[in-house]
Amino acid sequence: MILRKKQHWFRMFFVWHGSVLPQLLPRLGVLFLLSVLIVYLKGTLYEYKVPLSPAPFTIFGIALALFLGFRNSASYDRFWEGRKLWGALLNDTRSLARQAITLTGHSKNDEQVLAFINILIAFTYCLKHQLRNTSASEDLQRLLPGELAHSITEAKYKPIVLMIELGNWIQKARIMPGFDSISQVAMDGNLNKLSDIVGGCERIASTPIPYTYQVLLHRTVYLYCFLLPFGLVDSLGWITPLITVFIGYTFVAFEAIADELEEPFGTEPNDLALNAMCRMIETTLLEIVGKPLPEQIPALSAGHVFD
Amino acid sequence: MILRKKQHWFRMFFVWHGSVLPQLLPRLGVLFLLSVLIVYLKGTLYEYKVPLSPAPFTIFGIALALFLGFRNSASYDRFWEGRKLWGALLNDTRSLARQAITLTGHSKNDEQVLAFINILIAFTYCLKHQLRNTSASEDLQRLLPGELAHSITEAKYKPIVLMIELGNWIQKARIMPGFDSISQVAMDGNLNKLSDIVGGCERIASTPIPYTYQVLLHRTVYLYCFLLPFGLVDSLGWITPLITVFIGYTFVAFEAIADELEEPFGTEPNDLALNAMCRMIETTLLEIVGKPLPEQIPALSAGHVFD
Amino acid sequence: MILRKKQHWFRMFFVWHGSVLPQLLPRLGVLFLLSVLIVYLKGTLYEYKVPLSPAPFTIFGIALALFLGFRNSASYDRFWEGRKLWGALLNDTRSLARQAITLTGHSKNDEQVLAFINILIAFTYCLKHQLRNTSASEDLQRLLPGELAHSITEAKYKPIVLMIELGNWIQKARIMPGFDSISQVAMDGNLNKLSDIVGGCERIASTPIPYTYQVLLHRTVYLYCFLLPFGLVDSLGWITPLITVFIGYTFVAFEAIADELEEPFGTEPNDLALNAMCRMIETTLLEIVGKPLPEQIPALSAGHVFD
Amino acid sequence: MILRKKQHWFRMFFVWHGSVLPQLLPRLGVLFLLSVLIVYLKGTLYEYKVPLSPAPFTIFGIALALFLGFRNSASYDRFWEGRKLWGALLNDTRSLARQAITLTGHSKNDEQVLAFINILIAFTYCLKHQLRNTSASEDLQRLLPGELAHSITEAKYKPIVLMIELGNWIQKARIMPGFDSISQVAMDGNLNKLSDIVGGCERIASTPIPYTYQVLLHRTVYLYCFLLPFGLVDSLGWITPLITVFIGYTFVAFEAIADELEEPFGTEPNDLALNAMCRMIETTLLEIVGKPLPEQIPALSAGHVFD
Amino acid sequence: MILRKKQHWFRMFFVWHGSVLPQLLPRLGVLFLLSVLIVYLKGTLYEYKVPLSPAPFTIFGIALALFLGFRNSASYDRFWEGRKLWGALLNDTRSLARQAITLTGHSKNDEQVLAFINILIAFTYCLKHQLRNTSASEDLQRLLPGELAHSITEAKYKPIVLMIELGNWIQKARIMPGFDSISQVAMDGNLNKLSDIVGGCERIASTPIPYTYQVLLHRTVYLYCFLLPFGLVDSLGWITPLITVFIGYTFVAFEAIADELEEPFGTEPNDLALNAMCRMIETTLLEIVGKPLPEQIPALSAGHVFD
Repeated sequence: MILRKKQHWFRMFFVWHGSVLPQLLPRLGVLFLLSVLIVYLKGTLYEYKVPLSPAPFTIFGIALALFLGFRNSASYDRFWEGRKLWGALLNDTRSLARQAITLTGHSKNDEQVLAFINILIAFTYCLKHQLRNTSASEDLQRLLPGELAHSITEAKYKPIVLMIELGNWIQKARIMPGFDSISQVAMDGNLNKLSDIVGGCERIASTPIPYTYQVLLHRTVYLYCFLLPFGLVDSLGWITPLITVFIGYTFVAFEAIADELEEPFGTEPNDLALNAMCRMIETTLLEIVGKPLPEQIPALSAGHVFD
Repeated sequence: MILRKKQHWFRMFFVWHGSVLPQLLPRLGVLFLLSVLIVYLKGTLYEYKVPLSPAPFTIFGIALALFLGFRNSASYDRFWEGRKLWGALLNDTRSLARQAITLTGHSKNDEQVLAFINILIAFTYCLKHQLRNTSASEDLQRLLPGELAHSITEAKYKPIVLMIELGNWIQKARIMPGFDSISQVAMDGNLNKLSDIVGGCERIASTPIPYTYQVLLHRTVYLYCFLLPFGLVDSLGWITPLITVFIGYTFVAFEAIADELEEPFGTEPNDLALNAMCRMIETTLLEIVGKPLPEQIPALSAGHVFD
Repeated sequence: MILRKKQHWFRMFFVWHGSVLPQLLPRLGVLFLLSVLIVYLKGTLYEYKVPLSPAPFTIFGIALALFLGFRNSASYDRFWEGRKLWGALLNDTRSLARQAITLTGHSKNDEQVLAFINILIAFTYCLKHQLRNTSASEDLQRLLPGELAHSITEAKYKPIVLMIELGNWIQKARIMPGFDSISQVAMDGNLNKLSDIVGGCERIASTPIPYTYQVLLHRTVYLYCFLLPFGLVDSLGWITPLITVFIGYTFVAFEAIADELEEPFGTEPNDLALNAMCRMIETTLLEIVGKPLPEQIPALSAGHVFD
Repeated sequence: MILRKKQHWFRMFFVWHGSVLPQLLPRLGVLFLLSVLIVYLKGTLYEYKVPLSPAPFTIFGIALALFLGFRNSASYDRFWEGRKLWGALLNDTRSLARQAITLTGHSKNDEQVLAFINILIAFTYCLKHQLRNTSASEDLQRLLPGELAHSITEAKYKPIVLMIELGNWIQKARIMPGFDSISQVAMDGNLNKLSDIVGGCERIASTPIPYTYQVLLHRTVYLYCFLLPFGLVDSLGWITPLITVFIGYTFVAFEAIADELEEPFGTEPNDLALNAMCRMIETTLLEIVGKPLPEQIPALSAGHVFD
Repeated sequence: MILRKKQHWFRMFFVWHGSVLPQLLPRLGVLFLLSVLIVYLKGTLYEYKVPLSPAPFTIFGIALALFLGFRNSASYDRFWEGRKLWGALLNDTRSLARQAITLTGHSKNDEQVLAFINILIAFTYCLKHQLRNTSASEDLQRLLPGELAHSITEAKYKPIVLMIELGNWIQKARIMPGFDSISQVAMDGNLNKLSDIVGGCERIASTPIPYTYQVLLHRTVYLYCFLLPFGLVDSLGWITPLITVFIGYTFVAFEAIADELEEPFGTEPNDLALNAMCRMIETTLLEIVGKPLPEQIPALSAGHVFD
């Protein structure tokens, strides 16, 4: 995720980092060269004039924009749903931490409470590692007692197995006076929500937008762009390559952004900053139990990219 | 469902599997031949020139794109709601499995718990079989005791009857110390959610998008495509068939995708991978109770189709 | 609701039943004749040439399509919300039936349980009759004891009064051991949901899309269609009537579908199949208590219309 | 809110009442006269020909339609959310009335129950009066005991203060056998929902769509309409005023409808029928406790406007 | 937030305050001067005629409008979700205040209740200060006892730490007769909702719309506007600068509004009136406990801006 201070409208033209322009340059270069060639040949192929006019591009540009718009909305919805799920994770772990103190009657500094908080933090990191296919063992060893850390490392669905530990902790809290089955069920309700969050993230990560859409839109966008110079050369002349690349840039870039946002849990520049969010959850949970905060989230600097 | 690794933008033009192109080839072939004929006749019918210009196609192409866009969104929403329901099924069965351990006070390896888990897994497979109109008896015999398997096989709404079994199991758990009516109601709340999931899937499977839409859009899309060459022949000449087929491909393919996604529980390439999801639910539930995992979900290979 | 097997793309052109075409034929006929007249007069009125070109129709066609698209989405949302409410009714009555067995400790065959189920079924039929303004007395006499049936027949908001009966049944179940205030409140929560369902249906039935929209769109659609031949006659000549009717058909049909879906509880061909849903709820509730199923929902036949 | 029987498609052209046309007539008259003047001057201003062609209007008409479409959707969503909130109010008061009988064990005719029902009805009327800035004192005196009516009349946020009364009533019901803290909390949960309903209505009433949108769209719509005749005069000649007014009517009317729906709690013809809904809630609540219904909601007559 | 009385349609053209026009004037001035230059040079650059026609602008204007429309909807959704969250905050604090009286059995004037209310009010102000990066210490000292105010001032996530205080207050209320673990859990459920509200606000404040969108749309909008005069000069002549600025104003203003609404918790004129909402929450909570209202929210005056 890229955070930037607001910029002057004029300087925003020259932003390089965080734009998709760099990765598109080769394709736009090909498109530019092709357009130049078509202008040079005045739109002929093997001496036959290609009789394209702007008319079919008008007809079709609208359809293309609508279809791209649909794909883009679907991708953005996935990105934003992913963000909402991680927001819910923050809310829910905070609620569980609060309940572990105020419902059980434990004091803030209780050993038990800290153990519970650490499982919650480990849960968060495990979810991140599962979504990014990275190894959770380092974080597990940092946060959990050795034996538990070991058994979780073996598990296939780590966050789910950790939730059994959370459930057992709550079950054991029944020895506290005033913590009865009602309080247990109240905390268990928040575990249900955690289960929904894990499943929601898995759903986004495992089910892409149907592949057929990608194929159809990809083909349509590129064919459209590569036919465009034939349609424009008669009326626009030598300015055709510039206009073609300008229109092409917008369509191709829109498709590329949709592609990047579709899988929001990756590590591309516009993906969600799961690392920063894990650190933030750790910070706020530790503050709730009055522990010193481990590290600060780095301050906002211009063009800073969080991962 | 088709899962594929990201591909180079250029190689994506030549994807065959997973595209709807193969099934559309005959129609596009007819359209191509018709266009060639119209070019050959220079847009005349029985010596009368058909005086179509691109203008009405511009007017109409926009309306068509909007209506197609609506149909497509409605279909995609059904696809995605179906996926969400199966995601909720995963979350909910996990929650019930957790509660069967941590609320009842049963140990992980308890016979009772395993019986409960097996009913949950059978529930999942029954829902799949009901949605796909296939026979559930094999899975039922694998997972349930003989007599129960037999009586469920007879039932019309199998998942619902299985839920009575789940409810009875929970009722019987009242003999465990610490599992009172409150815990029972907490688990019963998750059965309510299962009921919503079953009903949600039945709703999508039994209520298509109103038939009138299909008829209207189908007629409009094809009439538009078959009139298009008359409108383009004067300005585009010999390139008319190519452009007609290109525009026709996009509109017709969009309609075909919408048609396929509308019923997401089928077995077409872009439908939901219910089999893979059933296996995954079985795997994660067995891991929760510490049983060895039965089989691995096959790894992602290029162009792999899950059903 | 119309259910049909998938059809060959070519045969779908000739579908008559379930299309809105039949009811639109008179209007389209008027439009056709008018277009023929305009072509014959070469677009003059009282010897003055009407100087319309396609340009304003392009400008305006887009706006029209957008506004129609909005009206259509709003109508479809109402249709689909109506379907969701009836789906929720299915889920909720199933949940109550399950709870009436597994929470109370009654056996499946208990008299009391059957009485409860019958009130639930009567509730469903009453809601249908209220929404369609038909008489509920026959169904009430079939399902309820005479005196109760009589008093409900007198009531203005029958489903709501029946819910008091459901609530009283639950209150009386407090004599069962193990069924305490907690179980009562759990079932009462499902009554709250029933209340939301009834109110949701009443909302859709009593509040149409603001009338001003209908008037504005209706006027715009028809004026557009009747002015269109003047705009097309110069460039399209004798083919004007065909194109006019084709474009007119799409716009007018879209408005007609939106009109039909707006009130989804009626008995027009594309409305919701409330009768079939009532029968289905009756079937599944009776199966839950192990009673023989009363009648089968008729199998899907080509072009079958459920009401 | 305007309720009308379905009308013949042809008679709908001449609907006057409920259309926004009457209030727009002066503006459309100005537009018509201006267009006539421009036709008369053949599009010149001080002898300079204004060289506008339809092209920029095509470019811009699309953008305008999209922006208007956005504003319209946002307004309609507010209207429909307002309706949903009042629907939820109906559902929720019904649920509370049912609980006041079946959870407490009071009989229908109990004094206490009637007092509770009357506070619920007063709550409904107070919300209406707050949203419409009218005086609640008459309704309060009709429904509540003198002293309470007086103290509520003084309050700033009347429905909220009434909810404390509802909460106190529920607290006092604890003396009933079988009505314990669980039943109390179940009814309290419905009070939470009432709180959400009040706040939701206040949100819609106090936060309009950002003012900047109104200014921008208003300026754009009117400038567009007043420039249009210059763009059409060359190609359309003497028919320019008619077409200008036709296009202008659609855009201006769409803006006017959006403006009216944006604040759904007012008393304009298309606003929500809060009076009718209050009466309906009163009727259904009284029926639940078996009281005679006070008055009938007037039957649907053609073109009847509910307020 | 700007609140204004409805204005005459004609006077709305000359609204200055609350429009984004003032901040856009320099850019539109540049655009105007450029257009004048291009008209003067008759669209030539270094004696080469730039052969742009309106055609590519039609193609592209539609795409641009769609993309802008998407960005605008996404921004408006963030604005409206922010408003909903603050509305939920109002509802939830009211509910907690009600419960603190009617569930605990405290009287309205109880010291304890007032302390609880003050923590709720402090919570509200802390959230505002966190979202706006302002200092909460003044409000904390006004509302809380000295020691607590001090410790909260030190905290990083102040509202979350305050919620522990709320939880402790509820835990201590267990000494009241009739306030058992069930009542505690009911109030705790509302604390969960508060947690969701805080996290929801943090989500909107910390995660902007992906930066790539801003860059892409910004570039496209401005390039489009600055190329436009070349495309219009041939057909529109001396009126080109006016039309260019008119079209440019709409596109640029739409982007600017989207930019302003995207972060709804700021202090720009169209942002949410967090100060007014804090005051309103304080007022209504104090009224619930029967305390005199501290200050009136200033009445609506024409063009009044709330912050």
